[in-house]
Amino acid sequence: MTTSTVLVIGGSGFIGKNLVAQLLKEDVQVRSLDLGPSGISDERLSSWSGSFLQQELLNEVMTGVDTVYHLAATAMPREANLNPHRDCLDNVGGTLGVLETALSAGVKRVVFSSSGGTVYGPTEVVPINEDHPTHPINAYGVSKLACEKYLRLYNGRAGKDGPLSTISLRIANPYGLQQNIRKAQGALTTFCARAAVDEAITIWGDGEVQRDFIHVKDVARALCLAGQSEVSGQEINIGSGKGTSLNALIAEIEGVLGHSVKCEYLPARSIDVKRNYLDTSKAKNLLNWQPEVNLRDGIQELLDGFGKKS
Amino acid sequence: MTTSTVLVIGGSGFIGKNLVAQLLKEDVQVRSLDLGPSGISDERLSSWSGSFLQQELLNEVMTGVDTVYHLAATAMPREANLNPHRDCLDNVGGTLGVLETALSAGVKRVVFSSSGGTVYGPTEVVPINEDHPTHPINAYGVSKLACEKYLRLYNGRAGKDGPLSTISLRIANPYGLQQNIRKAQGALTTFCARAAVDEAITIWGDGEVQRDFIHVKDVARALCLAGQSEVSGQEINIGSGKGTSLNALIAEIEGVLGHSVKCEYLPARSIDVKRNYLDTSKAKNLLNWQPEVNLRDGIQELLDGFGKKS
Repeated sequence: MTTSTVLVIGGSGFIGKNLVAQLLKEDVQVRSLDLGPSGISDERLSSWSGSFLQQELLNEVMTGVDTVYHLAATAMPREANLNPHRDCLDNVGGTLGVLETALSAGVKRVVFSSSGGTVYGPTEVVPINEDHPTHPINAYGVSKLACEKYLRLYNGRAGKDGPLSTISLRIANPYGLQQNIRKAQGALTTFCARAAVDEAITIWGDGEVQRDFIHVKDVARALCLAGQSEVSGQEINIGSGKGTSLNALIAEIEGVLGHSVKCEYLPARSIDVKRNYLDTSKAKNLLNWQPEVNLRDGIQELLDGFGKKS
Repeated sequence: MTTSTVLVIGGSGFIGKNLVAQLLKEDVQVRSLDLGPSGISDERLSSWSGSFLQQELLNEVMTGVDTVYHLAATAMPREANLNPHRDCLDNVGGTLGVLETALSAGVKRVVFSSSGGTVYGPTEVVPINEDHPTHPINAYGVSKLACEKYLRLYNGRAGKDGPLSTISLRIANPYGLQQNIRKAQGALTTFCARAAVDEAITIWGDGEVQRDFIHVKDVARALCLAGQSEVSGQEINIGSGKGTSLNALIAEIEGVLGHSVKCEYLPARSIDVKRNYLDTSKAKNLLNWQPEVNLRDGIQELLDGFGKKS
C-alpha cells in the first residue's frame, strides 16, 4: 500500500500549522499551500507558495493528492463584512474552485473548516447542535455556510478516480500560542498576550457574551480524524461544549496569574452574537473525538509562552 | 406624494412579465431590466435592455427607484448543476451586486424570488414551512439559498437615503401560458402544451413525485404584496399549499380533456426531490396573500391557450 498524500490549503495559518504538525505524526506525505511559509521543516513536507485562487497552481498542487484540508480564507470576519461581495467571490467562488479541481485531480476527500461561531447566527438554544437554524449575521458566516452547502453538493460527485467525499467542521473559537494577535484572531490568545505583559485587555460590550474556546491542538486532531473518517456529506461541530464569558476568562487568567488584570470595556459590536457554544456530541459519536486540553491548562500555556511565569 | 418607481430585474421572464402587468395595475412607474423585450407596452413602463451583471447599467437603472424586484438568474436548474461555480459567481455574485447598488442608489426595498422547490432539499415533513432544514441537492437551490442569506445580511444596512429592507419569497412551481416550454421551465405547462396537440407527455421517474403548482398570476400578486409590505429580513413560502403528483396532474388534464393522454416514463433524475409542497400560512398571516386560481381552472386555461378546446 502506498503512503497517502494530503494537502493543507492554508497550511501556514494558525490552524494550518497545527494541522500540518499533527499530520506529520502519521505516515503521510504532506503538502502545504499558502502565501507565506509555515516555518515547519520536515522531509515529508513540501510547501507550495501561492493562493488557492490561482487555478493553475491548484491543478498542480492537487495532482496525486488523496485528501485536501481546505482551511484558507482571504478575509477575516471583520474584513468580510466590509465587502461581502468580494468575500463571496473569493471564498465561496474559491471553494468551488477547490471542489472542481478535486474532482478533476482525482482527490478522494475534501475536509472544509467552517465556523461554529458564525454560521448559526443568533442562538435560540445552547449548546447549539448541528440542526440549529443557520441565520448568520455577518458576511463571514454567510460565505462559510454557502461553502458548506457546496461541499454537500459535491459529496458523491464522480471524480477522476471515483466519487469524491466531503465533510465540513464547524469550529468554535480556537486559541493557542501561534495565533496572530496582531490580527486579533482570538479573544483568549489576545487577552493572555496582554495580561502577560501587564497591558490592559480590551472587551467589546459588557463581557457577558459567551464563547466556546477550544485549543488549536484539539482542532488539529479533529481535522485529522475527519480526513480519515468515512462520514460524509454533513457538518460536525468542534468545540469545548462549554460556554465561557469573557469576564469568566479574565477571572481564569487572574486565577493563573495570582493577581488582577486591567480591563477596558468598549461598546458592543453589532456583528457579535450573544451566546455561542457548541454541542459536540456528534463529533464524539461520529469521529470519536473529544477535546483534551482544558481551559486552565491552555491559559497556563499561553501565559507561559507570552513570557510571564505565573 | 410622488408616484413610486419600481424596477423588475428579469421583467421579460415568465414571472417577470406577469409581475410587470400586475404592477401596472397600481399607481407606479415601472422599469424592466432584461436581455430581451417584455412584449408589454404601457406609457408607465420603461424597458432597459441588458443584464443585471452589467454594473454601469445597474447603477443607471436603479437611480431613483424605490423598490427592486430581483427575479433574474443566468441559469436554469439543470444548467446550474452542470457548472455550480459559474452559477455561483453569476447569481450569488450578481445578487450581491444588486444589493450593493441598491444601497448606493438609495433603494428602499429589495424583493428576491427564491425557490421553494429547491432550497429545502429532501423533505422531512410536508407541507414544508419556512423553518424546515435547508439542504439543497442541486446547485440552483444552493445559490438561491446563499442569496437569501445575503438578503438577510443587507436588511437594515444603511443606504443613501436610509436603511434598506429586504425580503425573499420561496416560490413553488409556477405555471401559466407564457412559460417557456422549449426550456422545459414547468412540468404542468409542458404537459398541457403536449396534451393539447396529442403529443406524448414525458415523465422522469414513476410520476409519483409530488409538486406544488401555483398559477403565475398568484405569484405576481404575492410579489406585489411583498414589495408593499413592511415585513423584512425573512423568507416566505408562496405556493398552493397542496402536493400534486405528476400522475394526478395527468388525471386532471384527462378530466378536462375528456379523454386519455399518452405518457412516456423515463428514469428518475437524481436532482429531483420526492415530495415538495409548501406550508403557506406565513404568507397568509404576514402578507395577507392566498392563492386564487385553482388547479382545474389553471389547466383549463392552459389547454385552451395551447389550442385545444376541451
